[in-house]
Amino acid sequence: MKIAVLGTGGGARAHAAKLLDLGHQVFVGTRAPEATLARTEPDMMGNIPYGQWLASHPGITLLTFGDAAAAADSLVINGIDGHNAVGALSAVAEQLAGKTVVDYAVPFVYQHETEHPWPTPWGVMPKLDPCDTDSLGEQIQRALPATKVVKSFVTQEQTTVVDPKAIGGGDHTMFVAGDHADAKQQVTDLLKAYGWIDILDVGALVGARGLEMYAHMHSAIGFGLGQQFGGHFGIKVVR
Amino acid sequence: MKIAVLGTGGGARAHAAKLLDLGHQVFVGTRAPEATLARTEPDMMGNIPYGQWLASHPGITLLTFGDAAAAADSLVINGIDGHNAVGALSAVAEQLAGKTVVDYAVPFVYQHETEHPWPTPWGVMPKLDPCDTDSLGEQIQRALPATKVVKSFVTQEQTTVVDPKAIGGGDHTMFVAGDHADAKQQVTDLLKAYGWIDILDVGALVGARGLEMYAHMHSAIGFGLGQQFGGHFGIKVVR
Repeated sequence: MKIAVLGTGGGARAHAAKLLDLGHQVFVGTRAPEATLARTEPDMMGNIPYGQWLASHPGITLLTFGDAAAAADSLVINGIDGHNAVGALSAVAEQLAGKTVVDYAVPFVYQHETEHPWPTPWGVMPKLDPCDTDSLGEQIQRALPATKVVKSFVTQEQTTVVDPKAIGGGDHTMFVAGDHADAKQQVTDLLKAYGWIDILDVGALVGARGLEMYAHMHSAIGFGLGQQFGGHFGIKVVR
Repeated sequence: MKIAVLGTGGGARAHAAKLLDLGHQVFVGTRAPEATLARTEPDMMGNIPYGQWLASHPGITLLTFGDAAAAADSLVINGIDGHNAVGALSAVAEQLAGKTVVDYAVPFVYQHETEHPWPTPWGVMPKLDPCDTDSLGEQIQRALPATKVVKSFVTQEQTTVVDPKAIGGGDHTMFVAGDHADAKQQVTDLLKAYGWIDILDVGALVGARGLEMYAHMHSAIGFGLGQQFGGHFGIKVVR
C-alpha cells in the first residue's frame, strides 16, 4: 500500500521505518523538503539529521505535506506535533479528503510558545490545550469533515507502538477511538501488522479526550519507574 | 488501628467494610450523622440507606467529620466527593493535623452544580476542575499544610480497590503519589493489607494530576469493554 506519514520527528521516523519493513510504499510529508534535507545538526529531540536518516532508509520518499497526503492510497499517519497539527492538516484538507488520518499527537503547549508561562513542576511536562471538554483528535475531525480521523498510538512512545513485543512480550493494550468504523478497522489492521494482539476500541472520537489526557499519567508512571525505563513501558487493561 | 473514613457513599462503604474485616476500629464521618441515619430512601447512586447498611456492619461508628477525624490514630481515608472535599476537610483541619489523608476523589463538576452547563457527550461524564495544571490532591494539601496528603485508589472503582484479586487474580497496578514518604509508606502498607501486590510510587503529589485525569480514560475503557464490565477492570503497567 501507499501510506503517508506526516512529520519527520522521532515518532514519525519509527512509523515510516516500520511501514517500509512491512513492504509498504512510504511517503513522508514535511513543510519544506529542501530545508529538512539541508539540516546538518540533530533536531531538538536529539534525532540525527533527516537526510542522514533517510539515506539509511532507501525507498522512503520525502515530499511536502500536501504531496505526501495526495500520494497515499487511503491511510495517513499524522506525526505533526499537537500544537501545529490543526493548521498544517487544514492546509492540505483537499489531499486528505476521503482518507483515514490516524493521529497520535498530544496537544502539549510548550512554554516558549505562549505569552503566558505557567509553573511546570513536571520539569519538561507542559500543559494540554485542548483538554477535558475537547481534544486534538476532535479538533482535527472538525477541521477535516471529509476525512475520517482515528485517535490511536497516543498512550505510549511511538518506538514501542511499532514494536509492541519489546514490552512484556506484547501483552499490553492499544486503544483506538473514532467516529468511523471502517477507519478504525483500517487502523486496527495496521496495528495487527505492527504486532499488536490486544486492541481495544473505546468508541467514538470523544474518547480521544481520555487517551490524550493520559499523557500526564504516562509521565507520572515514567517518573515512578525511574530514568532507566524512559518511556519504555505499556499498560494493559486487566479484566 | 483506629482509622477514619470520611463519607458515606459507595466507595467509602467499601473501605469501611474492608477495614472492619481487617480488624481495625472504623470511624465514619458524615456532615450530620442524625440526618444520614434518618434517610429511608436509597442515595442518588442507588446505595441502600446508610442506617440499614450500618446495621449489617456492627463495629463501625458513625460520627461527624470532625469527630471521626479526631478519633483516627493517624490514617484518614477521604471519601467526600471531589467538588466538596476541600471545603469539608478545611473545616476539620485541626482534627486532621499531623495525620495522613489518602484521597481518592475525582474532581468532577456535575452539571447541576454549575450555572454554566457544557455539552457532555460522555453521557454522565462531567468535566474536571481542577485539571491539567492543578489537582484536587494538591488543593487539599495546600488547604491542610499540617496534614500529609497521599493520592491513591483513584484509578479504579473503590469496590475493586478493596478487592484487587477479583480482577485478573490481582495482577494489576495501584498508584500512590505524595510529598511525604512516610505517609506513602503508610498507604502502601494499607494497600498490601487489601491484597495489592503491584504498587507503584509515582513520586510527588503533582502526579495526582495524572491519576485524576485518568478518569476520562477509565470511562473510555469502560465504554470499550461494554456495560457488562461496568467499572470492573484494572490496568497494569507492563515493563
